[in-house]
Amino acid sequence: MFREDLFLTNGTGRHLYETYAKDLPILDYHCHLLPQEICENREFSDLGEMWLAHDHYKWRAMRCFGIDERYITGNASYYEKFLKFAEIMPELIGNPLYIWCALELKRYFGIGEPLGAWNAKEIWHRTKELIAERHITPQYCMEQSRVELVCTTEDPADSLVYHRKMKERRDGTVRVIPAFRPDKAFYVEKDGFAEYIATLSEASGVTIRRFADLTDALEKRLLYFQNTGSMISDHGIEDFFWAGDCETDADAVFQKALAGEKPDTGEIARYRSTFLVELGKLYQKHGFVMQLHIGTYQGANRSEERRVGAACGFDCIDDGTSIKSVGALLNRLTECSSLPRTILYPLDASQMETFAVLAAGFCEGPWRGKVQLGAPWWFHDQPAGIRRQFEYAANLYPVALSVGMLTDSRSFLSYPRHELYRRVLCDYFGALVERGEYFSPEEELGRVIQNICYYNAKGWFGFDGKEG
Amino acid sequence: MFREDLFLTNGTGRHLYETYAKDLPILDYHCHLLPQEICENREFSDLGEMWLAHDHYKWRAMRCFGIDERYITGNASYYEKFLKFAEIMPELIGNPLYIWCALELKRYFGIGEPLGAWNAKEIWHRTKELIAERHITPQYCMEQSRVELVCTTEDPADSLVYHRKMKERRDGTVRVIPAFRPDKAFYVEKDGFAEYIATLSEASGVTIRRFADLTDALEKRLLYFQNTGSMISDHGIEDFFWAGDCETDADAVFQKALAGEKPDTGEIARYRSTFLVELGKLYQKHGFVMQLHIGTYQGANRSEERRVGAACGFDCIDDGTSIKSVGALLNRLTECSSLPRTILYPLDASQMETFAVLAAGFCEGPWRGKVQLGAPWWFHDQPAGIRRQFEYAANLYPVALSVGMLTDSRSFLSYPRHELYRRVLCDYFGALVERGEYFSPEEELGRVIQNICYYNAKGWFGFDGKEG
Amino acid sequence: MFREDLFLTNGTGRHLYETYAKDLPILDYHCHLLPQEICENREFSDLGEMWLAHDHYKWRAMRCFGIDERYITGNASYYEKFLKFAEIMPELIGNPLYIWCALELKRYFGIGEPLGAWNAKEIWHRTKELIAERHITPQYCMEQSRVELVCTTEDPADSLVYHRKMKERRDGTVRVIPAFRPDKAFYVEKDGFAEYIATLSEASGVTIRRFADLTDALEKRLLYFQNTGSMISDHGIEDFFWAGDCETDADAVFQKALAGEKPDTGEIARYRSTFLVELGKLYQKHGFVMQLHIGTYQGANRSEERRVGAACGFDCIDDGTSIKSVGALLNRLTECSSLPRTILYPLDASQMETFAVLAAGFCEGPWRGKVQLGAPWWFHDQPAGIRRQFEYAANLYPVALSVGMLTDSRSFLSYPRHELYRRVLCDYFGALVERGEYFSPEEELGRVIQNICYYNAKGWFGFDGKEG
Repeated sequence: MFREDLFLTNGTGRHLYETYAKDLPILDYHCHLLPQEICENREFSDLGEMWLAHDHYKWRAMRCFGIDERYITGNASYYEKFLKFAEIMPELIGNPLYIWCALELKRYFGIGEPLGAWNAKEIWHRTKELIAERHITPQYCMEQSRVELVCTTEDPADSLVYHRKMKERRDGTVRVIPAFRPDKAFYVEKDGFAEYIATLSEASGVTIRRFADLTDALEKRLLYFQNTGSMISDHGIEDFFWAGDCETDADAVFQKALAGEKPDTGEIARYRSTFLVELGKLYQKHGFVMQLHIGTYQGANRSEERRVGAACGFDCIDDGTSIKSVGALLNRLTECSSLPRTILYPLDASQMETFAVLAAGFCEGPWRGKVQLGAPWWFHDQPAGIRRQFEYAANLYPVALSVGMLTDSRSFLSYPRHELYRRVLCDYFGALVERGEYFSPEEELGRVIQNICYYNAKGWFGFDGKEG
Repeated sequence: MFREDLFLTNGTGRHLYETYAKDLPILDYHCHLLPQEICENREFSDLGEMWLAHDHYKWRAMRCFGIDERYITGNASYYEKFLKFAEIMPELIGNPLYIWCALELKRYFGIGEPLGAWNAKEIWHRTKELIAERHITPQYCMEQSRVELVCTTEDPADSLVYHRKMKERRDGTVRVIPAFRPDKAFYVEKDGFAEYIATLSEASGVTIRRFADLTDALEKRLLYFQNTGSMISDHGIEDFFWAGDCETDADAVFQKALAGEKPDTGEIARYRSTFLVELGKLYQKHGFVMQLHIGTYQGANRSEERRVGAACGFDCIDDGTSIKSVGALLNRLTECSSLPRTILYPLDASQMETFAVLAAGFCEGPWRGKVQLGAPWWFHDQPAGIRRQFEYAANLYPVALSVGMLTDSRSFLSYPRHELYRRVLCDYFGALVERGEYFSPEEELGRVIQNICYYNAKGWFGFDGKEG
Repeated sequence: MFREDLFLTNGTGRHLYETYAKDLPILDYHCHLLPQEICENREFSDLGEMWLAHDHYKWRAMRCFGIDERYITGNASYYEKFLKFAEIMPELIGNPLYIWCALELKRYFGIGEPLGAWNAKEIWHRTKELIAERHITPQYCMEQSRVELVCTTEDPADSLVYHRKMKERRDGTVRVIPAFRPDKAFYVEKDGFAEYIATLSEASGVTIRRFADLTDALEKRLLYFQNTGSMISDHGIEDFFWAGDCETDADAVFQKALAGEKPDTGEIARYRSTFLVELGKLYQKHGFVMQLHIGTYQGANRSEERRVGAACGFDCIDDGTSIKSVGALLNRLTECSSLPRTILYPLDASQMETFAVLAAGFCEGPWRGKVQLGAPWWFHDQPAGIRRQFEYAANLYPVALSVGMLTDSRSFLSYPRHELYRRVLCDYFGALVERGEYFSPEEELGRVIQNICYYNAKGWFGFDGKEG
């Protein structure tokens, strides 16, 4: 049965968790939820839909077990899909899906027994009833988990219609803001670039003929996002090679791409470098935070991606971005006094420490933790990955400054990932105390924990300021 | 004294090991034993010969301690060599040699005391007597360790004479099959390439003038291997750079090499890429498993290698193969519906997680674990490396799907490495259970353990099918 | 309160530490202390000065917390700086600064209470009195910590005036020798290269017009260092790309640089490769140890470095040096029978194991551990980094051969880092014993510990020979 001392292997850790971490609200500053579903407080029909409609983690695991695609993203019913997924649960030992699912069953449905083939049908029906009975909607999940703020990820051309609605009717419930993610304008070499620029042109009211027009248009949209309550940007960056920032160069590449020609590797690098510098300047100018998610290997399995779709579990980890390329970007922005508050999320775990050191090298007053190492990302946001980051990165970058956890999720049931993070954090701190490696007064440590779990994010992002 | 709770640090782990893992047979699907020695069931004269005749792990350690090469690979007697090795044993704390030797002394000779300078002579004589008395031969070791199957590693041109003999006289004893390892045809730039092609031509009966002839010849030999009971291939790959597959290009490089010219870096990359794609297709066509051992830095210490020999302990780890090069190979094979079941063994441990993620990205039904992350390889097949792979890779690739351990060894005494792996596995699982991170019924976990230790390999490789 | 069982989590480890490690003297074979301060046995005014005058670790941490540069490297008083630093102490959980400071307060001032804003003023005054009362000078710190030898890091052109004075008046106190660090002659592309060559020319009495003159001049200075008691060299190497050694090439680049031209990337690589080969030969010829510190990303934050200064906490970790480049250097030296005893210190922790394997591949008799993996360096010389290196590198390179810890420090209070290392070492060994992974007689393990902590360094560096 599910145990309430999960991850808490020492007495001090259990005490710290109960006293300082457990009851704090959640600021979920990065996720991929659909704003429409939040706004309309969508009713879900069953746990199959809630778990398996969007979650590429689960799809990926199911494919590993050789389950037919029909039961993954295909046209089998959610009931059939749920049964297939339930069957592999007992085999998911050591995988975050096991403990995430266990936490979700416990926290939202009060189910403490392990899910498997033997009880899948019964749990399907029990949860289906509860979903209907308790109206387990987005709002329900958020309230249940004390979520104060959610930040979804949106394209600059997005109308933000649901965000605006939610902002207008704001009634004490969760605050929902959009993060500004201009990836479509970044990937100059991708199909559909010119079409996207036309869309952006329309959304911004700026005729975009040159690279300078593009940054104008993006700035207009950034202000629109700000007006909708946002102060956060986000970039999904595959491999990145710093090639210097030069607007003339970037403009030439931009023209070429608009004309339908594919830029070459060097041109892509120059365009990307300049793009990130210019966007960084805009973020700093308008008080936005810059998040850099670095190192995806998008569509590694291209034929399956073409068949099944993008972001369906075929992306992997790239190892090709050198620390000096990211360092050069931060340095360039520092040199022109335009470095915004920044979070670096490297996807290749072997670079975690190198990035922690880089982040520390660009910190400066008056901000606490101006440049941050992000919480373990994607493949690494599980107990072992979180523990490892505490163990090693705390030595390189003060963990006390961290803005803490995020869900990065497409599921409304994923808030227990914050609980998981807090448990692992308190367990780690408890062990340090019990080994004699920390002996400051408990209230000091309590404050550190509260900061990491809640207050750091509140102040650093500016969630405590007046809404934009 | 040797303790039977070795590596088992928690009660649950001890129980799991005793109940589910301990007594299972061994399927050793990758090793470097000499088939002649198995076939003729060679008698060994002493432990010096058994330990020090082929084992580059021990040679390497002895060199670290400054022992003269005479006592390593030189013309000192095995007795002298054994004494030198025994002397450093107490200093090998933390090194796998320490615990491997301890396990081998215990399991084959019943010796539980630590080996050192003080008892080396006595243990030499005791083991010498036992070797003679018990006839500690290859068959003895395999029976003692419940080995059901052994797969040696052979060149395509090999006659497999001993494998065929063993297949014919098969009498309930261990099954011995060859893995198909066409490295000599892969390293187009190495000395002796043209001579090797002549040898292969003769063995296959195919006149090899073009690259297409080469793949024809290799296919013929693959079928010969299959006819000898094989369904496994293996590739030892130094650094690998994906340069696209194009038979015309590969053919041009092949011609050049046959003419005695050295291909340049780009040519090598194009040849290798095409070679692996074509071989992958053959494996898929004929139901073979493809094993890729990636990232050796062969003969890092070249002058010593020239002096002492290849594979004598001068090879190191290369860090130059990008994940995208391997990903592109898997993708290419997927695109032409020709991806065989594959095991990826990266040698650079910092790439272990990235490879685990890549493997998962290419899994598809109906196979369970179609593309696998291999067991920790070579420098990493020791307790800390195994534990680390469980801890981190289980999060990225379901460990329940793993085909488990292999010896990769040149020694008949090395089967306790399977015991070591099983102990570390049960200890890891036990700790997860005790921390509340797994709470499915014990029989489910028992089945997972049995699968990893035995049944996964049996089904995945096809050892349970009728012999070819 | 500070606890004397710090880091010692098992009984065996506590016993081993108390019995074998605790009381051994310290050989601090690599640091950045100022010889003048040692020679003149400088009196310090307060803990602010002792802690914050040179320590870029603390500066870096303070910047992370957003403290104004005035209180870091600026013109605030040491009292003000100390208060600012004390304030962040309770937030430095998991960071080595926390435990280093705790150890330093305990060992030199007998203060076992945690430092924080609430007692900073009181501790400032208490330590200030003790510094004056006990004359807490360099000599005091060294005697207190049983330091037998200190090796500072000096430029070849340095007069070594203080080292010579200390050598002459040697009176049973600590032995102080210089390490030969010719970085200014290595970085051919840096500003001031020609001026430096002029300085070196004057110091050596060699007119330096060609690359061959440069190595002559360096050899003369090496002999001068040897005559001052040195047998250790050191190289700080950013990224390194092996491009083959060719004196003609190196000479051409050298001429170009002397003429004030900047060499290009390929020229730099050829110069550096040749330089390291030639210096390696000199070290081997004269019995010097070669230390290679590889992988700094100097001045990642260039504008801040320009403003605040070099080595002030803006350096980061580079990930660009391939193992094959370092391997090629070692191989080249081996091929001409000129490989000196060498210590490899990689800064990118993800390369630690790869370097351990490389080091082992170049070991040869009669030296024990001829090529070594260095103790965890810089960002990694803290408990987690040390523990990790034991855990993983011991499997790849016998830890029993290690020459142990060094401070690498600019502070006279940093000797407790040896204590920390010894505690973590004994804790690691104790755990192996308690898990049954080591069971040789205790006196054997005791000897291993004593060797790592003291005797290995003594013999390997030649500290036990007659002074040069």
